[in-house]
Amino acid sequence: MTQKRHFDTDLDDLRARLLRMGSLCEEMIHYAVKVIVERDSAHVAAVQEWESQVNRLHIEIDEVCLKLIALHQPAAGDLRFLAAALKINSDLERVGDQAVNIAETATYLIKEPRIKLGDIPRMVEVAVGMLKDALDAFSRGDVELAKDVIHRDDEEDRLKSQTFNELVQLMQSDASAIQRGMDVILIARNLERVADHATNIAEDVVFMVVGKDIRHPGSRPPQE
Amino acid sequence: MTQKRHFDTDLDDLRARLLRMGSLCEEMIHYAVKVIVERDSAHVAAVQEWESQVNRLHIEIDEVCLKLIALHQPAAGDLRFLAAALKINSDLERVGDQAVNIAETATYLIKEPRIKLGDIPRMVEVAVGMLKDALDAFSRGDVELAKDVIHRDDEEDRLKSQTFNELVQLMQSDASAIQRGMDVILIARNLERVADHATNIAEDVVFMVVGKDIRHPGSRPPQE
Repeated sequence: MTQKRHFDTDLDDLRARLLRMGSLCEEMIHYAVKVIVERDSAHVAAVQEWESQVNRLHIEIDEVCLKLIALHQPAAGDLRFLAAALKINSDLERVGDQAVNIAETATYLIKEPRIKLGDIPRMVEVAVGMLKDALDAFSRGDVELAKDVIHRDDEEDRLKSQTFNELVQLMQSDASAIQRGMDVILIARNLERVADHATNIAEDVVFMVVGKDIRHPGSRPPQE
Repeated sequence: MTQKRHFDTDLDDLRARLLRMGSLCEEMIHYAVKVIVERDSAHVAAVQEWESQVNRLHIEIDEVCLKLIALHQPAAGDLRFLAAALKINSDLERVGDQAVNIAETATYLIKEPRIKLGDIPRMVEVAVGMLKDALDAFSRGDVELAKDVIHRDDEEDRLKSQTFNELVQLMQSDASAIQRGMDVILIARNLERVADHATNIAEDVVFMVVGKDIRHPGSRPPQE
C-alpha cells in the first residue's frame, strides 16, 4: 500500500464506523422480526443491546465528522463525503428506532393467538437488502448500485400495500383479529420506513459521488 | 447595526431560508388535515404546490451549507450551526413528505361516509406548535425553548395512543368502519412523526448551542 495522507486514514475509519453501525441495524431488524416469526421474546434483549451500541456510534460519528471538517477543511468530494456521512448517520439511527418499534409491537403481538403476517418476511428481505446495498454503494462510491437501491423501493411499497389489503380483509371478516391486524400493519409500515431510509442513503451516495442532487427530479437547483 | 462580516450575512440568509421552509411545512400540515376536517379535496393542490417549494429549498439549503463550509472553513459554533442546518433541512423535507402522505390518505377518506377523527385536531395543534417552537429555538439559539419542545413529544404520543384505542374500538363494533379507521390511524401516525421531527430539530438546537449531545442520555460519548 502506498503512503496515505492522515486524512485518508481518518476517512477510512469513519467509513468503517458507519458500516459497523449499518450491520448492527441490519441485525436489529432481523431480530425484531424474529420475535414474531419465532414467537420468542428473548430476541428483544438483543435488539435493545444493539440499540445502545447504535446510539453510541451515532454520537461518535457526528463528532468525528465535525472534527474532520474543522481540522482538515476539506473541499469538493471530501466535503460531500463528510456531509453524506452526517446524513447517513441520522438515517441509520432511525433505522435502529424502527427496529425497536417493531420489537415492542411484536412483544404485544406474540401474547395473542397467531395471526397471518402477510408479506412481512419478504418485506424484511427487501428492506435489509436495500440497506446493505446502500451502504455497500456508499463504501465503494458505486452510483449504479445506489440507483438500483432507489428502484427497489417500489417493490417494498407494493409488498406493504399487499399486506395492508390482506390484513384489512381479515379484520373485516373477524373482529377479534382487529387489534392484532393493526399491529401487523404497523410493523409493515416500520419496514417500509426502513426501505425509505435505505433510499435516502442511496440518494446521498449519488450526490456524494456525482455532486448532483437527484432527490427531487422535478425541482431545478438554484442558478447562481 | 454594526458592520457584520460577510459570513454572518450568509448565515442570516441561511437561517431565513430554513424558517421559510419551516413555515411552508406548517402550512402543508394544516392544509393536509383540512382536507379531512372540511371534507374538501381542493386543499390537496395547495399541499402539492408547497411541496415543490419545499423540495427546491431542500436542495438549495444543502448547497448553501456545503458552500459556506468550503468557503469559510468555520470552526466550533459556526460549524455546529451549519451541521445543525444540514440536519434540520432533512427533517423539514420529511415533514413535507408526511403532509403529502396525510393529504393522500385524506383524499380516499373523504370519498367514504364520515368517521370520527379521535384526537387528530389536537394532534395537529401539538405537532405544528412543536415544529414552530423548534424553529424559533433554532433561530434564537434558545435552549430552554428547545427542551420544552422535547418534553411536549410525550403529549403527542399520548394523543396518538388515545386515537388508536378509540378507533380500534369503533372498528371492533363496526366492520364497515375498518378501512376508514385504519386511514385515521395512519394519519395519527403521520402526525406523531411530525412531532418526532420537531423533537429531532430541538435536539439539534441544543447540540448547536451548548455543544452537548442530549440525544441518547444513556450513551456516554467517546472519551478521547
